[in-house]
Amino acid sequence: MSNTKTIEAFFSPEKAAVIGASNKKGSVGYTIFENLKKSKTKKVFPINPKYKKIQGVKAFSSIQKIKEKIDLAVIVVPAIVVPASLEECMKAKVKAVIIVSAGFSEIGEKKLTNQIESLIKKYPNTRVMGPNCVGVTDSFTGVDTTFFERSRMKTPKKGNLSFISQSGALGSMILDWVATQEFGVNKFCSYGNAMDVDEADLLEYFGNDKQTKVITMYLEGARDGRKFFEVAKRVSKKKPIIILKGSRNEETQKAAASHTGSLAGSSKVYEAVFHQSGIIEADDLLDLFNIAKILEKEPLPKGNRVQIITNGGGFGIVTADQIISNGLKLSKLSKESIKNLKNIMPTDSTISNPMDLRGDADIPRYKVAIESALRDKNVDVVMVLVLFNLPTIEVKKLMSLKQARAKASKPTIVCAIGSDYTEKYMDTIEKAGFTTFNYPSVAAKAVKAMVSYAKFLKKN
Amino acid sequence: MSNTKTIEAFFSPEKAAVIGASNKKGSVGYTIFENLKKSKTKKVFPINPKYKKIQGVKAFSSIQKIKEKIDLAVIVVPAIVVPASLEECMKAKVKAVIIVSAGFSEIGEKKLTNQIESLIKKYPNTRVMGPNCVGVTDSFTGVDTTFFERSRMKTPKKGNLSFISQSGALGSMILDWVATQEFGVNKFCSYGNAMDVDEADLLEYFGNDKQTKVITMYLEGARDGRKFFEVAKRVSKKKPIIILKGSRNEETQKAAASHTGSLAGSSKVYEAVFHQSGIIEADDLLDLFNIAKILEKEPLPKGNRVQIITNGGGFGIVTADQIISNGLKLSKLSKESIKNLKNIMPTDSTISNPMDLRGDADIPRYKVAIESALRDKNVDVVMVLVLFNLPTIEVKKLMSLKQARAKASKPTIVCAIGSDYTEKYMDTIEKAGFTTFNYPSVAAKAVKAMVSYAKFLKKN
Repeated sequence: MSNTKTIEAFFSPEKAAVIGASNKKGSVGYTIFENLKKSKTKKVFPINPKYKKIQGVKAFSSIQKIKEKIDLAVIVVPAIVVPASLEECMKAKVKAVIIVSAGFSEIGEKKLTNQIESLIKKYPNTRVMGPNCVGVTDSFTGVDTTFFERSRMKTPKKGNLSFISQSGALGSMILDWVATQEFGVNKFCSYGNAMDVDEADLLEYFGNDKQTKVITMYLEGARDGRKFFEVAKRVSKKKPIIILKGSRNEETQKAAASHTGSLAGSSKVYEAVFHQSGIIEADDLLDLFNIAKILEKEPLPKGNRVQIITNGGGFGIVTADQIISNGLKLSKLSKESIKNLKNIMPTDSTISNPMDLRGDADIPRYKVAIESALRDKNVDVVMVLVLFNLPTIEVKKLMSLKQARAKASKPTIVCAIGSDYTEKYMDTIEKAGFTTFNYPSVAAKAVKAMVSYAKFLKKN
Repeated sequence: MSNTKTIEAFFSPEKAAVIGASNKKGSVGYTIFENLKKSKTKKVFPINPKYKKIQGVKAFSSIQKIKEKIDLAVIVVPAIVVPASLEECMKAKVKAVIIVSAGFSEIGEKKLTNQIESLIKKYPNTRVMGPNCVGVTDSFTGVDTTFFERSRMKTPKKGNLSFISQSGALGSMILDWVATQEFGVNKFCSYGNAMDVDEADLLEYFGNDKQTKVITMYLEGARDGRKFFEVAKRVSKKKPIIILKGSRNEETQKAAASHTGSLAGSSKVYEAVFHQSGIIEADDLLDLFNIAKILEKEPLPKGNRVQIITNGGGFGIVTADQIISNGLKLSKLSKESIKNLKNIMPTDSTISNPMDLRGDADIPRYKVAIESALRDKNVDVVMVLVLFNLPTIEVKKLMSLKQARAKASKPTIVCAIGSDYTEKYMDTIEKAGFTTFNYPSVAAKAVKAMVSYAKFLKKN
């Protein structure tokens, strides 16, 4: 069976079981069973010899007592009984097992770890995730094996971005933050000690997953460098992979060793691997998802020539500085575009880059400018800056830009900073289909990443 | 009279006049007169021969008709009559004149520009700001000569940060954004064509202004490089100056020439000047105010050794990577601190940097860790990371950290990212006196700026 096929059961099981399901509100066994019941999974069985019923559902003393074929089992029992529970799952031919329980290699435990290792070798048809992991969420099937405190965090919108995090806690923090953003998440996975299913398996799965358009990842160190490299090379030809690499320095590599037990390896080796396999490396949490956002929403640019359009001279200059310092180029408009633009601009204007539409620019003037830049062969990316507080910006006409956007075969992004008034109209701009950013530096970094990914695809 | 004394009248006039005041709602002359009436300025006179009363106040046909001594006059008449209005002010011995009107050197106009230049030379006792400027705001005196559309933006809180912007529009956009932040603004000034009062005069004034603790600036090019350098050297010994330099590249220098008419000059020359005079250069709008915020709120560090304290291993690693890539060092705790910390930590813990308090850390454990780091001679800066969504973080106990903070003679900052729940408790953390950041990269850059400013002060 292909790797992708075997991973599928973690996200879209028809029948699932929770070993260690509980009636104790707030416990991990309670939360996971409750969450799975709410999902689209057809049947979810609670396994716990202590109970006859769990949350109103008939409980079983063992998975082997269930007559039906189980796709996914989630194990939340104490470490000491994990090997026995796992073997029962394997004997029952469960396709996928998530071991949430901790207390294995991450604390230096050897005996139980070895037992699990032997079982994985003995029963290769059952795929195992963990131990010591929070497992998966899938916004379409509703499967959710994470046990984060719901009152303390939000769930992201549905979207086309999938996220693999080597750290469960960091992953949960990021998902909570993503819930405040305009982009949505498709699938999330934190795979813990990676004794069987590892980052490369997940990468390959997301690479083949039609609902995933962009893959984001927090990685401290790959379990199997070569496997990871091979898979990444294949996958990044199909869709972009953006990685925030944790432990990029000798000192933090030590910290990573005691955190996820991963051999982080030289950051130079990773940089080379990332470069060769077309992986986009994010510098920070902030960049990770901003790069993902632009790649999810925008068409790929043909080159690195950016046209800035603005109603504020200073804002244009600050942005142009960021464009240049990120290795991008300011485009030079064609004669035809300049001629077009002269018609709509005050007579004393010079049409340049940044293209300063002046403080009295209205939305129709913006529209002509954006459309000219989109048509111009010398322009690869259009970056529109708006000072919404200038009185001639008629916000009622904002949606008219939707037509310009709809025709766009080039990345067209909008930057603005301000308080409530500006934020409100940035939401409108998003609804008109544009990708928005506040800070020019963040936008420029995202465009840079996009340009280099487009370049990689051209070469490969 | 000292430069500082003469600039004072722009911000704290006892008596003011608006030449070109108007009854036409929404006009610049209306808005500025209305704003000044609301300020603490004792008397404000409207000047306009067309009206008998303006907004209910007796109007004068000329400033010379007023028997009282005027400190500040704001000119908002058409360019063609600006020289005559200005001369009347000068003859009436007005201390400070702001020429809001545009239509001079910024559009290549020469005749009127030369007339103003001659008047400035002839009457050196009147200081002139502008033309083509939005003037000043002062959050304490309430003086506000800007004419931004109030319904489209917010006003920042009162604070200790002053802001000089060569671009009026960019300045207004930034002020609107600052209104969403937790730090406040003291004075703002955008000085337009700088025919008399320039960036160096304002820098010197803010340097002597007791209400200004930190000076921020958007600068495309100084009018008089040498004067600016001399003043900056003196002022930065007293308080930090943070500059976002617009037009850092040859291409954007051309744009700056047509925007503010400034000779931006080689960015290498500026870099050298900034370095020698202790000016902190911000890379972007985002950094400009984050650096200002940390310098306003935190004591200066003695060195560059940062101790990270966290309840999430991955978050600690990501932050440590940023600390190192910004040229800072991870501190090595003293034996005494380690001994202290061992008492409060699970037995199998290793105390290191990042100091991982584990996922089950509560606020009392954080408190001991923060206090140990604050006492430790090997630590210069304490960076506290919190995953608020972990269940043992008892938010009710957050305010107990206030005591630790109150004793702190070292910068102590808190980083967290999340949605509503986290943001709410970050507000509490701020109220307990800590400076907060979302992104580790932004925090690390701010700490780096702070460390380099402290180093400059030690040497100078």
